[in-house]
Amino acid sequence: MARRSFWAWGTEDDEPTMTQVEEAARRAGERWGITIEPVPPPKIEEIELRTPRATVPEKLRGFCTTETFDRARHTYGKSFADSVRAYRREFANPPDVVAYPRSEEEVVAVLEWCDQQGHTAIPWGGGSSVVGGLDVPADSPAAVSINLERMNRVLEVDATSRAARIQAGALGPEIEEQLRPHGLTLRHYPQSFEWSALGGWIATRSGGHYATNHTHIDDFVESVRMVTPRGAWESRRLPGSGAGPSPDRLAIGSEGILGIITEAWMRVQARPVFRASAGVRFPTWESGYDAARAIVQSKLWPANCRLLDPQEAQNAAGADGSYALLVLGFESGDLPQGEFLHQALRIAREAGGTVPEDEIVIKDDQGAPGEAGRQGAVGAWRNAFIRAPYARNINSGLGTVGDTFETSMTWDRWPEFDRNVRAAVNDALKRVCGEGTLTCRFTHVYPDGPAPYYTYAGPGKRGGEIEMWWEVKQAALEAVWANGGTVTHHHAVGRDHRPWYDRQRPDLFADALRAAKKAVDPKAILNPGVLIDP
Amino acid sequence: MARRSFWAWGTEDDEPTMTQVEEAARRAGERWGITIEPVPPPKIEEIELRTPRATVPEKLRGFCTTETFDRARHTYGKSFADSVRAYRREFANPPDVVAYPRSEEEVVAVLEWCDQQGHTAIPWGGGSSVVGGLDVPADSPAAVSINLERMNRVLEVDATSRAARIQAGALGPEIEEQLRPHGLTLRHYPQSFEWSALGGWIATRSGGHYATNHTHIDDFVESVRMVTPRGAWESRRLPGSGAGPSPDRLAIGSEGILGIITEAWMRVQARPVFRASAGVRFPTWESGYDAARAIVQSKLWPANCRLLDPQEAQNAAGADGSYALLVLGFESGDLPQGEFLHQALRIAREAGGTVPEDEIVIKDDQGAPGEAGRQGAVGAWRNAFIRAPYARNINSGLGTVGDTFETSMTWDRWPEFDRNVRAAVNDALKRVCGEGTLTCRFTHVYPDGPAPYYTYAGPGKRGGEIEMWWEVKQAALEAVWANGGTVTHHHAVGRDHRPWYDRQRPDLFADALRAAKKAVDPKAILNPGVLIDP
Repeated sequence: MARRSFWAWGTEDDEPTMTQVEEAARRAGERWGITIEPVPPPKIEEIELRTPRATVPEKLRGFCTTETFDRARHTYGKSFADSVRAYRREFANPPDVVAYPRSEEEVVAVLEWCDQQGHTAIPWGGGSSVVGGLDVPADSPAAVSINLERMNRVLEVDATSRAARIQAGALGPEIEEQLRPHGLTLRHYPQSFEWSALGGWIATRSGGHYATNHTHIDDFVESVRMVTPRGAWESRRLPGSGAGPSPDRLAIGSEGILGIITEAWMRVQARPVFRASAGVRFPTWESGYDAARAIVQSKLWPANCRLLDPQEAQNAAGADGSYALLVLGFESGDLPQGEFLHQALRIAREAGGTVPEDEIVIKDDQGAPGEAGRQGAVGAWRNAFIRAPYARNINSGLGTVGDTFETSMTWDRWPEFDRNVRAAVNDALKRVCGEGTLTCRFTHVYPDGPAPYYTYAGPGKRGGEIEMWWEVKQAALEAVWANGGTVTHHHAVGRDHRPWYDRQRPDLFADALRAAKKAVDPKAILNPGVLIDP
Repeated sequence: MARRSFWAWGTEDDEPTMTQVEEAARRAGERWGITIEPVPPPKIEEIELRTPRATVPEKLRGFCTTETFDRARHTYGKSFADSVRAYRREFANPPDVVAYPRSEEEVVAVLEWCDQQGHTAIPWGGGSSVVGGLDVPADSPAAVSINLERMNRVLEVDATSRAARIQAGALGPEIEEQLRPHGLTLRHYPQSFEWSALGGWIATRSGGHYATNHTHIDDFVESVRMVTPRGAWESRRLPGSGAGPSPDRLAIGSEGILGIITEAWMRVQARPVFRASAGVRFPTWESGYDAARAIVQSKLWPANCRLLDPQEAQNAAGADGSYALLVLGFESGDLPQGEFLHQALRIAREAGGTVPEDEIVIKDDQGAPGEAGRQGAVGAWRNAFIRAPYARNINSGLGTVGDTFETSMTWDRWPEFDRNVRAAVNDALKRVCGEGTLTCRFTHVYPDGPAPYYTYAGPGKRGGEIEMWWEVKQAALEAVWANGGTVTHHHAVGRDHRPWYDRQRPDLFADALRAAKKAVDPKAILNPGVLIDP
């Protein structure tokens, strides 16, 4: 397989060609009525880095490097600003060393070295952070990115309990490949699935495949093992417990500030053989809310229950823009799902939805692990979802502005929330970009509220697009915060979301978290500035 | 209504009469083949307490008292040892003051006073702790029990999001009574339901009504408000979030060591109108495991899925002792449940279960919020469950030994776990009591493991029964710990479970929790010794 790109989503094979860039520049120029000069994608030969500010000690040389390629590859995550800077060949603040530990012993060794030397330690899973979670802090004397990609094995499978012990560096596809022979699957598919790792999912409270019931990785963690500068922290494998505050729930979402997650026992699933899905149409975005709410409150717990506004349905699921689309999907390795779908459809119809017959696909034939959910509007949406991150490989060189933001709030606030947030973001797009588009879908739905996901785009000025993006992002987050949402439903906090996170979480919780960090990372070497200031 | 008993479960009306005690002594004597001299239940006039070691300041006198009745009532929780000591009229270490704040301002005021004076502050919800969570520490210079029973209102209802803001001192029935006019219900029924409060449920990670899926109170907390010595800690109402480690999950299970929970937004349910239930019989205890496991792994998520061993089925559900009983129940305010039950029954039958036709009760007639689940073996089990805590009012004066313990572990460990734990406890009963009984049921079932609940009883020696109980309890917890279970699934840790909890939780988590406590309770006035040593 081709090696990972030092800047793009995916491997070097996924880096765009100049022809692709030219085509994209033409299309974007047409879209916004401007002329875009295509710029060739960066090559590693063009990148010059600051001299490493740390020397790898003899005993760590087997898995630590100061090579330019490795340091460049670990300079950024995958936020809009990260991608634009990488495309610009700006790598002003790279890590000084990259470690690729092959075992927990090596994780311990490199962390000990960082602790002794006062080097910043940056845990690195798949490198997909979109919130500045992987940056070298500006005031760091030296920094070591610790990439767990060589710790990518499923170590143990307990098929009876449907659980597996998995190393934290395993990427989504690596996990699925190793579980498949056991008839099992983790079924955690964030949009970053291909290039994000278990440890990162846990550290950032990743949102996954299931749109209802157990939505976050949190619910699939049976126990977790984390290496801190003061030693290992490991919880007991338990299906449920009431013994004090959950130790796992402090590690989950800790974004690398408490330790490096090395492995976890995860709750896995039987591979689905029964599937049922449908796309329900609603005349307007607003007219779909009640159906989504009633279905999730009925506790049918569909795996998929994603409402797309008319524009989003057109962009991502091949609809004609005249209706909102509720994508419903049920799946199971144990039970036929047709009846569940029919019950959900009855609720959706009562709420004003219409369902074209060819959008109902039921594969309850146990012999055929079928294609249900991969046809029609539902299938179109799926493919677009998985390919979306690759688009930025081209877009980040165009000088245009575009990003997503996601949140959740209770139903009572929702309709007004959407109106206010759209007004604020559209206003910012107009002010900053002159014009722009904004669409929305529900990625997850809870009995007490939806998790909407917004996508926006606008024309920009090359060289100024990061500032423009930041101004729109600020307007979005300010509106999210002011209207009662969370600063993030599953993209994490990192450094980019700090200003709003700091106003959202209880101040005393931040004090408690700061104290907890000090207890396990007394020198504050792990991701300083992420979540809290030391 | 009669006032709460100063020693018994319930009100003064629930205190046993001498006739009842005589009858119980006769029956227990017959059961164990010994003679039991009946002892009259305690009266408040017989109780003499140590002089209060603190003087209530003028401004707190409106809601603080040093009356004997109040101090006696707050001396103990409801563990076996607590009840025996109370029955013995031993009240050696009562709190010095009892506060009944009527508002958060008064909670703040009494906590400030404690903080200034160095008085131990003991948050008190319903007083149902069975783990020594309400004790005055032996080395406490003075202690104040802070009883929230006057803060018992549902303050706000958001019917659209199915959520309600509820004061922490509201007892189970008080919550249900206030939600009923809205067509809503919290549906959290721990065995202590009648005499335990929301704040206590949250502080101890109470396990509730639902046997599968969302089992603990944890999952029903939308946001929580807690007063600490350093001020208030309140999270945002959110249906889901990925913003750092969950602040709520640190407050949930904190057992009063971080602060006093004053109110919470809770996720509530539509009142069930559709119900379906059945009792499935299995020839042996062991032959029921696969059915319970397959049903929960199928994700049908029954509200009830409780497997009773043959003896437990006889004691608690009117069975004849020749079969194990799987109590299945489905319920919904939104959808007919008959089909769900039939699917579960199909799985249960495939796993070897038999279902007498008259044990299948389906009330899918929306007009009649029926009696389904309240008939047959299922109904018998329900009534016994709710009445069980009252039995201790009589038993604790007999000199016999009896208690319960509960845990959870993964399925792969389960059958061996049960064998080993039964061997250890039966051995201890024989050694300590000469003989005894031990039965088990699953109270909750997870895809990755069951939560078994053991009940034991044996003859004892009056005056020595606490030591005897403690020896059996130690044997049980040692076996639970050694065989991979949790020290508690929903009874909490308190002080009684500390020796095993300390071996279960990661040491570094304890350090982090200790640091977090210091950040919000710098003088360690709140429940010192619970969960951690200061």
